[in-house]
Amino acid sequence: MPLVTLTTDFGTRDGYVGAMKGVLASLAPEAIAVDIAHDVPRHDIAHGAWVLANAAFRFPVGTIHLAVVDPGVGGARAEVIVQARGHLFVGPDNGLFAHVGRDCDGTWAITSPAFRESNASATFHGRDVFAPAAAALARGLPPHLAGPATCLAGQLPWPAPEPGAGAVVHIDVYGNLITDLPAATGDGARVEVLGHALPMVRTYADVDVGALCAYVGSMGTVEIAVRQGSAARILGAGRGTAVRLL
Amino acid sequence: MPLVTLTTDFGTRDGYVGAMKGVLASLAPEAIAVDIAHDVPRHDIAHGAWVLANAAFRFPVGTIHLAVVDPGVGGARAEVIVQARGHLFVGPDNGLFAHVGRDCDGTWAITSPAFRESNASATFHGRDVFAPAAAALARGLPPHLAGPATCLAGQLPWPAPEPGAGAVVHIDVYGNLITDLPAATGDGARVEVLGHALPMVRTYADVDVGALCAYVGSMGTVEIAVRQGSAARILGAGRGTAVRLL
Amino acid sequence: MPLVTLTTDFGTRDGYVGAMKGVLASLAPEAIAVDIAHDVPRHDIAHGAWVLANAAFRFPVGTIHLAVVDPGVGGARAEVIVQARGHLFVGPDNGLFAHVGRDCDGTWAITSPAFRESNASATFHGRDVFAPAAAALARGLPPHLAGPATCLAGQLPWPAPEPGAGAVVHIDVYGNLITDLPAATGDGARVEVLGHALPMVRTYADVDVGALCAYVGSMGTVEIAVRQGSAARILGAGRGTAVRLL
Repeated sequence: MPLVTLTTDFGTRDGYVGAMKGVLASLAPEAIAVDIAHDVPRHDIAHGAWVLANAAFRFPVGTIHLAVVDPGVGGARAEVIVQARGHLFVGPDNGLFAHVGRDCDGTWAITSPAFRESNASATFHGRDVFAPAAAALARGLPPHLAGPATCLAGQLPWPAPEPGAGAVVHIDVYGNLITDLPAATGDGARVEVLGHALPMVRTYADVDVGALCAYVGSMGTVEIAVRQGSAARILGAGRGTAVRLL
Repeated sequence: MPLVTLTTDFGTRDGYVGAMKGVLASLAPEAIAVDIAHDVPRHDIAHGAWVLANAAFRFPVGTIHLAVVDPGVGGARAEVIVQARGHLFVGPDNGLFAHVGRDCDGTWAITSPAFRESNASATFHGRDVFAPAAAALARGLPPHLAGPATCLAGQLPWPAPEPGAGAVVHIDVYGNLITDLPAATGDGARVEVLGHALPMVRTYADVDVGALCAYVGSMGTVEIAVRQGSAARILGAGRGTAVRLL
Repeated sequence: MPLVTLTTDFGTRDGYVGAMKGVLASLAPEAIAVDIAHDVPRHDIAHGAWVLANAAFRFPVGTIHLAVVDPGVGGARAEVIVQARGHLFVGPDNGLFAHVGRDCDGTWAITSPAFRESNASATFHGRDVFAPAAAALARGLPPHLAGPATCLAGQLPWPAPEPGAGAVVHIDVYGNLITDLPAATGDGARVEVLGHALPMVRTYADVDVGALCAYVGSMGTVEIAVRQGSAARILGAGRGTAVRLL
């Protein structure tokens, strides 16, 4: 049975997520809907992009990922299906697929009436465009039938990392800073952030409660944390804060 | 396999939703539980009623919708099953089904021991009455076996709309104002709210960031929004705020 | 099809829950993942323990419960599988299983490579240890193959109740105080908390809005509530607050 994951900024107090699941259940009764996250901060595309990067490829090849963080709904950004590493992603092309689409094998605009409501509302493409497109894929239609091939245009608002330098790309619910610095290895490796030079440790459990530390995180990049505290708050760091290996 | 949706104000930090899902899984192992929303504001029946209106009928005919926003649990309000448009709704008769039950085909009290725990607690009917009733329906028992036919009594705290005039009936997580005014069409249509006369546009993406506008929303009624802002906060509007077509 | 429930403090805005579900779907495609709660307050082991106590045993015998509230991840606490009342629990041994493991039939450390990633990260055992272990159980591997038998060591930070005296063990989202006092029966039974002597009533619906009362809650123990208000806030009570039968 095909899996369809859902990632949105719709929250868990309205009926929007339910309406999308209803469309999926109506159009692709065999599909299994799996919630990834619905409390992506409102309109925060870069946050949503990271959530997908974190979770999507852990699912089996063939999984369909429906993602909607879409402040420009009804405007100029395209509606797309992206194929990458054997997974299919459905949503707006506004940067939401910048991480997961890095090695993408194809992108298609969603224009075919088999993939979207003919009378789609201008404000709820999650229900009227993206859920029907995901359902079409779940029923086995190949993505190239959705519409013309295109290129993924959406970008994230910071540059790609340079050797030895990078940035905070995500702050998680614990206040941990996740960077795009590849794992720093070797004895005596240290990481600099906002004037602090932090030794690399194995994990925050190796330092005292309240202490700041750096380690290779679960995504394989350098993370910065305060044991049982919020590194984001204590350092005053945000997304885009520069980090570098010393 | 039968679908059972869940809509509650139980939140996502306690075990109450899990206990209901456990009862469903025990009594109707074939049923698939689908979360609609669990962060309906506490005790906010009218909010829950809107969430159901937004989502329920997008599911296939035959879906069972278990809904619990029930400040009067253990008191006088009835426990009911409502049949409308081929869907079944299970929960308290306190207004929660006022939208979805508008064209209802039948309402039954839940009194039969096949549809509820014989030793139901006085404070958790979600687990002891409504989940067993939904499970009975999911196992194929017809709703009229639940108990005597009755009438849906619960009402929402505002009047039905009059021609050309209506009210804000829901404020979503983005601060958009959803009204019960039917779609205003024709050139030059405008909507008045709190002294503002707003032209109807196609969608908020057609106005500047921060601008106030009105448009036909995804529910087919007039909505009022601020592009990338909260109309509720900026206007100081709430549920029940009057709106009218000019 | 095996059920795997999920209970965490990971929240619903990051990709952590999704990553765990992805691992489950990859390693045990037949398993059905069911969310219990992901907004357990951060690092609040005792809260998570109560959520499990509230929900887990409502599921059918044979259900696998994956639970991660794990401030000590990467540190000294063991990773375990606990068997109790025909259910299996997977997570850190830090007190999270103190309620559900009270009558446990066995506990095993998770050391076998069939039950965990060989290159587990030090910070995300939910994804790299507990989800693979739950998947192994869902595929039918018996828990004793996970590793050596051990004893459940984690405790909650308050003593077991004495006859007639107890404590608040959980405060739910409504601010109701759930105690470990067994149901007080008999005419004239009263409960004392913070200087208030409260008569036992059937339920809060039997008192006026805003009134304080005690009753036998849905877990079979004494609860204290304010009708349509928060007893926790009004009384200034917290977990561990003493209560006794008068």
